[in-house]
Amino acid sequence: MQLLKDRILKDGQVLKGEILKVDSFLNHQMDPILMDAIGEEFARRFAGEPITRILTIEASGIAPALFAGYHLKVPVVFAKKTESANQDASTYSAPVHSYTRGRDNTIRVASRYLSASDHVLLIDDFLAHGEALLGLAEIVRQAGATLAGAGIVIEKGFQQGGQRVRSSGIRVESLAIIRSMADGHVEFAEDTEQK
Amino acid sequence: MQLLKDRILKDGQVLKGEILKVDSFLNHQMDPILMDAIGEEFARRFAGEPITRILTIEASGIAPALFAGYHLKVPVVFAKKTESANQDASTYSAPVHSYTRGRDNTIRVASRYLSASDHVLLIDDFLAHGEALLGLAEIVRQAGATLAGAGIVIEKGFQQGGQRVRSSGIRVESLAIIRSMADGHVEFAEDTEQK
Repeated sequence: MQLLKDRILKDGQVLKGEILKVDSFLNHQMDPILMDAIGEEFARRFAGEPITRILTIEASGIAPALFAGYHLKVPVVFAKKTESANQDASTYSAPVHSYTRGRDNTIRVASRYLSASDHVLLIDDFLAHGEALLGLAEIVRQAGATLAGAGIVIEKGFQQGGQRVRSSGIRVESLAIIRSMADGHVEFAEDTEQK
Repeated sequence: MQLLKDRILKDGQVLKGEILKVDSFLNHQMDPILMDAIGEEFARRFAGEPITRILTIEASGIAPALFAGYHLKVPVVFAKKTESANQDASTYSAPVHSYTRGRDNTIRVASRYLSASDHVLLIDDFLAHGEALLGLAEIVRQAGATLAGAGIVIEKGFQQGGQRVRSSGIRVESLAIIRSMADGHVEFAEDTEQK
């Protein structure tokens, strides 16, 4: 997605440890016009799937997921990383290791918001090691729902997450795949969109 | 906002402890079409203000804030409740007591995403005790920015937050104000919209 790649080149910062900082438009400050374009692009790529629900993870997955849900006209559920006081007793849950934070989280979704009749699109802002996406897929499995695939805003193509997730049989559509960030310079891989 | 009130009556659940559970459309599962209507209504109510930025708090403030930002065509910043690994060194921060969770959080915003030239609209999903809103207002004060006011999806009018925030001089626009939830029955207060 050219609009997104241009924005990454313009406003992204490459930090030590192969970190791409895009918090000026994606995951701290958010550009709602760009988020809308991203949501529309996810809807276009998954137009052939009878999606009934979108599943993402708080907090930075919410923006792209919400606009994808807007364009697909389906509800959006975000998995929670902390137990909330008023949570349903019945939840699906999966462990997710966070490499950035160096700890394990349990992500949770109330059982009543996913069922065996759902066809689910996963959305997240980043795909690096694949932990979050595989955790979300596990929750879909527990619900007995089917998976349309995963829409990712930025995939770190030089890490193993994309391969892990794709080799588990999940269709992944990433709007920007980064091949390398050597010397602080972002290089994108060729577009992998399924035509 | 009638659409929202109808939805609260249809899908909201009143739980013990004066809890209104609206996680089927607002803060766990989200209805993007309703969120868009909510964002449009906030934009309409604050149309007279030269808003440059929206500030909210993760995670459940993001959805209404994002659509308000979409309609007002301004960036949306969400304050973080946990320190992130790649966070800027320079942040504004404020303590926020959570009554639901029974603990204090420090909320943080990277300094570069708020400045003295900003005119800020605060958005949140709930107004109960007013802690989150006053924390966000404190961050705006630290940035030297000005405040257009606060847009709230659901205000618990029987708790003291609305009065605390309004008496501090902040204009509050709540799309639904609940007067009472006695016996599990939701009663709304009259609309307080400033014409």
